[in-house]
Amino acid sequence: MTRYDIAIIGTGPAGLEAAITAKVRNKNIILFGSRNLSQKMAVVDHPILNYLGLPSVTGKEMAAAFQKQLDEMGIEITEQKVTSVYAMGDFFGLQLSNGEMAEAESVILASGVVAGKPYPGEEQFLGRGVSYCATCDAPLYRNKTVAVIGGSAEEEAEADFLGEVCEKVYYLPLYKGEPQFSHENIEIISGKPVEIKGMMKANQLVTDQNTYDVDCVFVLRAAQFPGQLVPGLATEGNAVKVDLQMKTNIVGLFAAGDIAGQPYQYIKAAGQGNTAALSAVSYLAEKKKG
Amino acid sequence: MTRYDIAIIGTGPAGLEAAITAKVRNKNIILFGSRNLSQKMAVVDHPILNYLGLPSVTGKEMAAAFQKQLDEMGIEITEQKVTSVYAMGDFFGLQLSNGEMAEAESVILASGVVAGKPYPGEEQFLGRGVSYCATCDAPLYRNKTVAVIGGSAEEEAEADFLGEVCEKVYYLPLYKGEPQFSHENIEIISGKPVEIKGMMKANQLVTDQNTYDVDCVFVLRAAQFPGQLVPGLATEGNAVKVDLQMKTNIVGLFAAGDIAGQPYQYIKAAGQGNTAALSAVSYLAEKKKG
Repeated sequence: MTRYDIAIIGTGPAGLEAAITAKVRNKNIILFGSRNLSQKMAVVDHPILNYLGLPSVTGKEMAAAFQKQLDEMGIEITEQKVTSVYAMGDFFGLQLSNGEMAEAESVILASGVVAGKPYPGEEQFLGRGVSYCATCDAPLYRNKTVAVIGGSAEEEAEADFLGEVCEKVYYLPLYKGEPQFSHENIEIISGKPVEIKGMMKANQLVTDQNTYDVDCVFVLRAAQFPGQLVPGLATEGNAVKVDLQMKTNIVGLFAAGDIAGQPYQYIKAAGQGNTAALSAVSYLAEKKKG
Repeated sequence: MTRYDIAIIGTGPAGLEAAITAKVRNKNIILFGSRNLSQKMAVVDHPILNYLGLPSVTGKEMAAAFQKQLDEMGIEITEQKVTSVYAMGDFFGLQLSNGEMAEAESVILASGVVAGKPYPGEEQFLGRGVSYCATCDAPLYRNKTVAVIGGSAEEEAEADFLGEVCEKVYYLPLYKGEPQFSHENIEIISGKPVEIKGMMKANQLVTDQNTYDVDCVFVLRAAQFPGQLVPGLATEGNAVKVDLQMKTNIVGLFAAGDIAGQPYQYIKAAGQGNTAALSAVSYLAEKKKG
């Protein structure tokens, strides 16, 4: 397995700037995110006035400028969601939503901020009836009943896969629109998730309308809460705790952009991405020296 | 006297981004710097590869993009050097190199990093035979002998003014080129400044070639060491101590860019300028509430 120098998670301004800076410094990188770059950026249709160097652009124009730069530098985006990052001592293991693993010497978290907070019971039962990765954990629930909380239409494919493996799937969309599935054992339910209940393991999903007996609840958000993405990571509210060099409490792991706290601004995110990349480069150099 | 909402010192990426963000937030700002923007940027003729949004630009092209944005937003640059910033409790007083003062509710330091360190004796005798402002302090040395350490050709006009007022001026250029003066009592001397000596007041400039008896040494650099620019400012080496919101130890005073520490990178500077401006905006809002 290739062990990358730097794995960068997120394709908003923080992740992209980290990628171009790391590339300029000749690092072997892998950049996880979306070919649409940032969902947040894509929906901005009023002009963005305060990104120095790009006078009065829409989110689309900004994304196009960024994409052009990636293309010129030969930087590719790996369209996989990273569901967990494990500090293995000397390197990091990244669990991907396709069930595969990736390895890197250092990691930059730039996956943006997640609104809200975990559901009651979500953290308590994580790994024991709560999962963030359908592909990874589906085999554990063969012929069982599961629920999927889907943050966006992109999660429908994951639920469809669960429909193939499980006996019954409840699908609770958090977005507007009509979910489409190819398996008839997937039942779309409505309501707002309220709590995940259980004893030793989670066994119920409670919504504001009903309670469902399940063997697992798959919570599929566009991005993870940082503390759940990386076990042991120090956080403050929804933000990763960082210093001015974008170091987290875990050696070799850096954070930048919205995930590192306010203000939620494009250029601030890019600036932090730059610093995080250079800190990762220094970390790699130190490590090489031994 | 106009009391500005925010005084921004410096026209590199940090100061410019602070200015456009403060302007977008409808603040009454004054931006001190050079119409050439950043000296450092102007001399870069190899491509800058890692400013997200501006693929592979020279320093000149980058400066042109920034200038265009300033023009579109109606932001003007006040070409004055700020030689001291005084925290007056409720506001800040800024001493300008033309001898005038400016006032602002809050201040953002973005004047870049100064290489090297103060000369031995410089800090000790500051205000007692060491000065950073020719126009301000020339009247104190009428018919006396002074030395000027000139960091760039732009300081020659200052020395010329001292030639008009003082009996004798020694001019020590730290740059290449032939200084031009209209007063014959200005003597160009060579060598490297080594120390400023004195007892109660400074009375000698020592170079590696000679010693000159003087009543004052004017040290005219492109930018001040932050601790000398702002009395009471907490620093670490050549950097101002800041937190992630770009706050310094002085309430209402913020710092961004190279002056706030490494890495010395354009996009990192811009990102910090954005954060500093938003922190200043929050500070002004809090202050207004009382």
